[in-house]
Amino acid sequence: MRTLAKQIHRVALENPETVVDLAGWVHRIRELGAVSFVILRDRSGLVQVVLPGKVDFTLESVIQVQGTAALNEKAPGGAEVRATHIDVLSAADGDLPFAVSGDVGKMGLDVILDHRSLSLRNPKIRAIFKVQSTIIEALSAFLRSQDFTEIKTSKLIGSGTEGGTGLFEVDYFGRKVFLAQSPQFYKQTLVASGLERVFEVAPAYRAEKHDTPRHLNEYVSLDVEMGFIDSERDLIELEKSLLASIFEEVLRKNADELALWNATVPSPDLVAQAPTVAHDEALRIAAQELRDKDGSAKPGTSLTSAFFEISPEVERLMCAWALREKGIDLVFVNEFPRRHRPFYTYPSSATHTMSFDALFRGLEITTGGRRQNNYQALLEVLPKFGLNAEALKDYLDIFKYGCPPHGGFAIGLERLTQKILGLANVKEASLFPRDRKRVAP
Amino acid sequence: MRTLAKQIHRVALENPETVVDLAGWVHRIRELGAVSFVILRDRSGLVQVVLPGKVDFTLESVIQVQGTAALNEKAPGGAEVRATHIDVLSAADGDLPFAVSGDVGKMGLDVILDHRSLSLRNPKIRAIFKVQSTIIEALSAFLRSQDFTEIKTSKLIGSGTEGGTGLFEVDYFGRKVFLAQSPQFYKQTLVASGLERVFEVAPAYRAEKHDTPRHLNEYVSLDVEMGFIDSERDLIELEKSLLASIFEEVLRKNADELALWNATVPSPDLVAQAPTVAHDEALRIAAQELRDKDGSAKPGTSLTSAFFEISPEVERLMCAWALREKGIDLVFVNEFPRRHRPFYTYPSSATHTMSFDALFRGLEITTGGRRQNNYQALLEVLPKFGLNAEALKDYLDIFKYGCPPHGGFAIGLERLTQKILGLANVKEASLFPRDRKRVAP
Repeated sequence: MRTLAKQIHRVALENPETVVDLAGWVHRIRELGAVSFVILRDRSGLVQVVLPGKVDFTLESVIQVQGTAALNEKAPGGAEVRATHIDVLSAADGDLPFAVSGDVGKMGLDVILDHRSLSLRNPKIRAIFKVQSTIIEALSAFLRSQDFTEIKTSKLIGSGTEGGTGLFEVDYFGRKVFLAQSPQFYKQTLVASGLERVFEVAPAYRAEKHDTPRHLNEYVSLDVEMGFIDSERDLIELEKSLLASIFEEVLRKNADELALWNATVPSPDLVAQAPTVAHDEALRIAAQELRDKDGSAKPGTSLTSAFFEISPEVERLMCAWALREKGIDLVFVNEFPRRHRPFYTYPSSATHTMSFDALFRGLEITTGGRRQNNYQALLEVLPKFGLNAEALKDYLDIFKYGCPPHGGFAIGLERLTQKILGLANVKEASLFPRDRKRVAP
Repeated sequence: MRTLAKQIHRVALENPETVVDLAGWVHRIRELGAVSFVILRDRSGLVQVVLPGKVDFTLESVIQVQGTAALNEKAPGGAEVRATHIDVLSAADGDLPFAVSGDVGKMGLDVILDHRSLSLRNPKIRAIFKVQSTIIEALSAFLRSQDFTEIKTSKLIGSGTEGGTGLFEVDYFGRKVFLAQSPQFYKQTLVASGLERVFEVAPAYRAEKHDTPRHLNEYVSLDVEMGFIDSERDLIELEKSLLASIFEEVLRKNADELALWNATVPSPDLVAQAPTVAHDEALRIAAQELRDKDGSAKPGTSLTSAFFEISPEVERLMCAWALREKGIDLVFVNEFPRRHRPFYTYPSSATHTMSFDALFRGLEITTGGRRQNNYQALLEVLPKFGLNAEALKDYLDIFKYGCPPHGGFAIGLERLTQKILGLANVKEASLFPRDRKRVAP
């Protein structure tokens, strides 16, 4: 029966004579002549092992240790294991490509990504994916508590519903199909099917040749869709509750991981106060923010800034504004103009739509909105977007046989992880990211 | 504030004068001159709505009803809503392709799959995906309770590690990459990274031209991998506990859904008793089963049956044997011959391996085993499988820097769903299945 590193202190207190079996990786070695100190690392943490003489194994080897636990105030965690027997389960090459307990900031992203089995041994890097695992758990738990059903839909689609741009092509038994950019049409089908409330956690694909710290060509999309809403405001309320619940769980389960990144999460009270600003108003606020900032930076200069879309700069400015005004750098922008949104977005007026983005700590983490659920209205809008009903037959059929008012949104898992921990690049929040150049490991 | 169908009985008991808002689909209409009875269906169930006069909406339209709740012993669920106002939110075409409350057995699989937004309105078909959602939830909860971390890995792989057969090709910015058949190498990387115990719920792809009731070209793989095991027997024990936990949760949350399919799940006690039989012995048992069956069917005939691999027929025979001998049609077959398993399988002898399959109700639902974690041993075995170390460099690197003994398995989500409910075809357990001919909707 294996004992974990984190259990040694209690064993030393309660059963100091018992023989324990430890197993893990050799994190550090200190030889002091007649005795050696080895720090062993397992999934639960670190523990000191004391053994007679010198060690005959390398750093990062996997060893199994038999010994007795003893209290020792000088040891990390206040206890250690005095080894009576050690087996090397897997010897590590003495020539490691980099020191796993080094400074993450100095490792370089390519080194981290090229050597995942080593880089994740660094507690700070591992912390990213412990938090990510909690995000998925908390999201699922919250949505299930709200009567949502988890779904799994196909990632191979027969046609690019919104045209073929931005889609990866797959050779499917000699036929050309595409990797899905989003499960949105499937989510809508399932709302209409009477499930009413569905969510999916699954990969999504964008064949865009961007190379920025905010883009991935393959990412995990946290997709939500629900029936019987009035407008995008119901979705914004849902997302606020969802985010508050995720933040609470991350704080509860991953306080150590947050500490490693010197990160905090907003409290539920603050999330509830996150403002919702209409698109056109957001552009005005961002321009004013920029003028104020530039004005204070260079007194005397007078700029006539203007924005025409929610650009990355506007995202940053709006979050700075919300933080100053409401104490939280989370803001919902709604009422996007018709021309900025896909054909299926529900109109709120002749020119605007019931759509929204969520901006968190300077980055868009969500796009969503109410969808048009009227068959005739969809038929009428298609030509304006250069689309034809024939190619969209499967989609249009959803609305023929009774489809309630509905809408949904998607959160990018890697972006949310990135912003919770304050990572410089979204690729750090993906175990095996894919970009223009990277398809391995 | 919307009230759900299943809440009406309590409202009628406790607040019969309160005005309630219902919303849902028109499931059935019965007009009796001065009064009409409409059965409304929402995500929670069915409820009777009574309104004066005739109805002016079609079956499957989405309506919103205002009225008061009242007890009525003759109504389904013992209560009904007396409508004062009805709005049609979405009118259904009067010409439905099929009756959604009809007999599922008579609908035909293509009709069901071509019209998911309609076919899922049938409670029996919807039940499949309520059970599937519970399976994912129960699996995640159990594995997290055992200290597993949920991971998300790339489905785009730069090379077919075991050769290119059975892989779908993707055009990735002009480069040829493939859809992953399994996240196994990534799982192994993450065990070696110190996470030790990981699981993933994600799509997997097989470009095989089969067309059987047991195959899908895209399926959801429930993948598990853990470090510090001795042999595949540790994995079999883990899978038994996991399946027992899934069955218990399905029984607890989906008793109604099980009843619709006249299905039962094995008790935890029975799962614990599921036998493990070595591959060669399983072939002998299956052959004997067949002789006994044929012998009793055609007395006087003497057959010399023999099997050379765990074929679908052997799977059925072994489950029948286990049900008779142990009271449960779940059996683990281990010790597969070297030639039947991939190069990375850990040997148990010169000729056999530490690998296993799980067979449930006549179908293989799991393949797994311990993996070779010794770098030199892997180098030596590669040529025997016609593989070279250069092409497998990324994979081999996992074992260079300390990799504990480990192994894992994968359960096919759709197959497990199929076998729990007794579905004739695995495609019934996939919302949007993909096969040689089907890539839509």
